[in-house]
Amino acid sequence: MLENKNQNRTSLSELGEFGLIEHLTKHFNLSHTSTIKAVGDDAAVLQTSDKQTLITTDLLVEGVHFDLSYMPLKHLGYKAVMVNLSDVYAMNGNAEQITVSIAVSNRFPLEALEELYAGIQLACETYKVDLIGGDTTSSTKGMLISVTAIGKAAKEDVVYRNGAKETDLIVVTGDIGAAYLGLQVLEREKQVFQVNPNNQPDLDSYTYIIERQLKPEARKDIPALLKELEVKPTAMIDISDGLSSEVMHICTQSKVGCKIYEDKIPLDPQVIATSEEFNMDSTMIALSGGEDYELLFTVPIADFDKIKGNPNFTVIGHITAQQQGMNLVTRANQEIALQAQGWNAL
Amino acid sequence: MLENKNQNRTSLSELGEFGLIEHLTKHFNLSHTSTIKAVGDDAAVLQTSDKQTLITTDLLVEGVHFDLSYMPLKHLGYKAVMVNLSDVYAMNGNAEQITVSIAVSNRFPLEALEELYAGIQLACETYKVDLIGGDTTSSTKGMLISVTAIGKAAKEDVVYRNGAKETDLIVVTGDIGAAYLGLQVLEREKQVFQVNPNNQPDLDSYTYIIERQLKPEARKDIPALLKELEVKPTAMIDISDGLSSEVMHICTQSKVGCKIYEDKIPLDPQVIATSEEFNMDSTMIALSGGEDYELLFTVPIADFDKIKGNPNFTVIGHITAQQQGMNLVTRANQEIALQAQGWNAL
Repeated sequence: MLENKNQNRTSLSELGEFGLIEHLTKHFNLSHTSTIKAVGDDAAVLQTSDKQTLITTDLLVEGVHFDLSYMPLKHLGYKAVMVNLSDVYAMNGNAEQITVSIAVSNRFPLEALEELYAGIQLACETYKVDLIGGDTTSSTKGMLISVTAIGKAAKEDVVYRNGAKETDLIVVTGDIGAAYLGLQVLEREKQVFQVNPNNQPDLDSYTYIIERQLKPEARKDIPALLKELEVKPTAMIDISDGLSSEVMHICTQSKVGCKIYEDKIPLDPQVIATSEEFNMDSTMIALSGGEDYELLFTVPIADFDKIKGNPNFTVIGHITAQQQGMNLVTRANQEIALQAQGWNAL
Repeated sequence: MLENKNQNRTSLSELGEFGLIEHLTKHFNLSHTSTIKAVGDDAAVLQTSDKQTLITTDLLVEGVHFDLSYMPLKHLGYKAVMVNLSDVYAMNGNAEQITVSIAVSNRFPLEALEELYAGIQLACETYKVDLIGGDTTSSTKGMLISVTAIGKAAKEDVVYRNGAKETDLIVVTGDIGAAYLGLQVLEREKQVFQVNPNNQPDLDSYTYIIERQLKPEARKDIPALLKELEVKPTAMIDISDGLSSEVMHICTQSKVGCKIYEDKIPLDPQVIATSEEFNMDSTMIALSGGEDYELLFTVPIADFDKIKGNPNFTVIGHITAQQQGMNLVTRANQEIALQAQGWNAL
């Protein structure tokens, strides 16, 4: 955090609300012709198209969703955007705009908000989304960030959670569990630091899992890739709360059951090694960890040939009839009922 | 607040995030055919039309924007929606959807959130807007509400802040200053209560100004009325921070000056009487008070015949060349420069 460094501190009250928003957003460029008017009026104005509009919003609260003692503000800004873009991609759409509102206590100087907005700007540039509005206000304690993302998809491309059918394959992108383990490493280092502030942590063997926690990337590439492969998922959701609860959302809303195969769950070697070090079960971490921001979707079995061998996709199971329940098939070939255990705050 | 009453208290942790959102939103009806999918998926889905989309967002923080010791939760929910709808109407559009995110500490039981959502629901029904999404999370302190409103307007109907021209008339809807004075009365009663909790306040002579503070109404009727009168404002803004700073926003963005006539500013008799009681200048209150959620707009002088005599409108001045500055003409016919003194938090 900035408070640990010897930098200039400009009090927020020196700028006032209007000066602050202008100051923080003046370097943001717009990349969509659909953005007619961004920050600066009562409301932003977007040109409509023949596509449907997707809207999603998330709230991140200091002390609940993030800890600034190990989360740099620039990363926090980036992650706050990712969390929302991920929801748009999970509808099989493309995100085009965001609004960002923040509430901060007076312990934060202007320079801290500049760091936060640098991360938001990097996310906007990397993912080609336009910042079109927001609100900046004071809080009595801590920092809170509210982001709303606006996206587009052709009506025929939108994928809901409720379309999974019996015999459909269950597919996950990338690998999972890393973000949660990265958090465990960061929490441990924080405790070590509190005992001995001079200790220099050696985090070389945790780089991947820490990056997955501090700088997750939403899967903007997946809707485009699916289109290229001529695959339309029957249901899709992003993995924010852990594989188990996301699978259960799809099954419940689609009124189906499922079998997930433990040995198919894609894990990075660093996840396996760090799980062992922490004496935790890597399958449990993948099922309940969360914050991976990968996508989970179902496709008709007839599409198997189109996705097999693609390094982005892993088939982890299949959809069953609802009365068969939602089950994990263990390595020992035992079936146990899935449980929703997302660790996200309320 | 609920804490003062002998009601049932259900801990929020008994429901969990998914149960909570479903519980709070299950009685909300949808009134727009453009709302394809509301709460319940990764993102809401809206059908597009040939109109432009308007997006606005506001954050309300306990202890900064509201005080639950005199703001009932149902009113707070209603007001949080009004604040955002007002911004859509200020673009000359119609609001169709909202998202609502809340962060609450564990001092709030489920019944408190039900009260809050009852106010949100009343606003949705009265103003015909659909609740399409949101987020519910815990906070380490207090309550925070983030609302985003989505509206529509034909491209040719959208009114920005930057179109005011020299000689245009400056018009305000309704009357102003009441919301701020209502707050002063409530603050005074709070202090009286703290000294003597058995004191029964007599608020009969303040009913209008207190209602303007606790239950403001956004001017949904004005865009429709303007259309009926065949008047398109050259610039428009809503009065959230006080007349003075709103006039200055229009002038600055339109690169013009203005003259506002003190004796034209529309004040309710209760505002005049209560100002005298509080030994405050009613013009200052109108200029700097805020939270009235009336609309301020400019129209070509040729449109004067279309608006004169309409009880919704008061012409309070006119636009001048930029070099003439932004001035108030007092009752004594003196010109003094306007100053932005909105009392809203940072």
